[in-house]
Amino acid sequence: MATAHVGIVVFDEVEVLDFCGPFEVFASAALPPAEPGGAETHLYSVVTIAERPEVVRCRGGLRVVPDHTYRDHPPLAIIVVPGGYGTRAQRTNPALLDWVRAQHTGGVLVTSVCTGAFVLAGAGLLDGKPATTHWSTIDWLRHEHPEIEVRDDERIVDLGPIVTSAGVSAGIDMALHVVGRLHGTDIAMRTARDMEYDGWVGSERA
Amino acid sequence: MATAHVGIVVFDEVEVLDFCGPFEVFASAALPPAEPGGAETHLYSVVTIAERPEVVRCRGGLRVVPDHTYRDHPPLAIIVVPGGYGTRAQRTNPALLDWVRAQHTGGVLVTSVCTGAFVLAGAGLLDGKPATTHWSTIDWLRHEHPEIEVRDDERIVDLGPIVTSAGVSAGIDMALHVVGRLHGTDIAMRTARDMEYDGWVGSERA
Repeated sequence: MATAHVGIVVFDEVEVLDFCGPFEVFASAALPPAEPGGAETHLYSVVTIAERPEVVRCRGGLRVVPDHTYRDHPPLAIIVVPGGYGTRAQRTNPALLDWVRAQHTGGVLVTSVCTGAFVLAGAGLLDGKPATTHWSTIDWLRHEHPEIEVRDDERIVDLGPIVTSAGVSAGIDMALHVVGRLHGTDIAMRTARDMEYDGWVGSERA
Repeated sequence: MATAHVGIVVFDEVEVLDFCGPFEVFASAALPPAEPGGAETHLYSVVTIAERPEVVRCRGGLRVVPDHTYRDHPPLAIIVVPGGYGTRAQRTNPALLDWVRAQHTGGVLVTSVCTGAFVLAGAGLLDGKPATTHWSTIDWLRHEHPEIEVRDDERIVDLGPIVTSAGVSAGIDMALHVVGRLHGTDIAMRTARDMEYDGWVGSERA
């Protein structure tokens, strides 16, 4: 099976866990070995994508080298738009908004974590639809985008081709949810177990 | 109040969430504003530290530029030794083991996530003491280090100057635990809430 690509958007002042949580999930998700002692089959190759090839300075100072730019990346199955203070600038950045719209139009599964929802909103992907964001920016999303049905009581809002999620660590749950939707709950639970993400395994078991 | 430094070790094939979870927690931990509308006071400045200044290639391909090397970094309050496949090489790397020992001797709080415990074990910090690691390497740690009292039923083992934790996502809990121990449960819960790490807030509340 060919490995599908997940593209994770990075930009200055992106929140670290917003993108590293989904990175960990999608990079870890794998089919179990066909035979005992065999190798597992990873489901995704994860790449970071930025507007420019230069080093990105994340919130808190972590420095990441993007793998690709919006104009130069492999075909993607899924994109993740994380949040963080940097979305204040990114939510009106035509280069990012045009790219996100093009991915959506091209059939790529578009996901957001935290204030990444403002980017999807800016791209017009959430008009007339339910969505969520970090709890502290729920009112702001409502004010800026009255056309969106903003949900303040759901950690993940799955519209099929678009999935938004709540703040920071919720990106882990969102990515596990997507793995479960696309590959089955067993594969998602196996991934959560590999990450010792016990709360998720527990709640899915219950 | 001067901001204390947290040093997070990075190396090739380090597991992404192992180090990004604690990075997020320590970079987010802050005292609330003294007055409504004021600025919060961040408790830590987080830096990445590697053996060499070159770009580190994490597990899954994420590329990180280290801020400092073992020979060139600010005085630290806390170090985090993450796990990942890279620890197979790092657990016998004298440059890292000597540095970890020196930090411990110098009074720095030494923490590990996942198979980062093998590095602390290699440095001799866990002799005769309880410790934990990723569930899949519990037996291996017991076999390699019979002098350690390996715990397979605890997510965090806090010895005071040394804290080990279970796999991957357990690093988030470990870092929140350390923030709570050093600055009080209210500050740790505030940090967890900012990260929407609801399970942790919930369990601490209960």
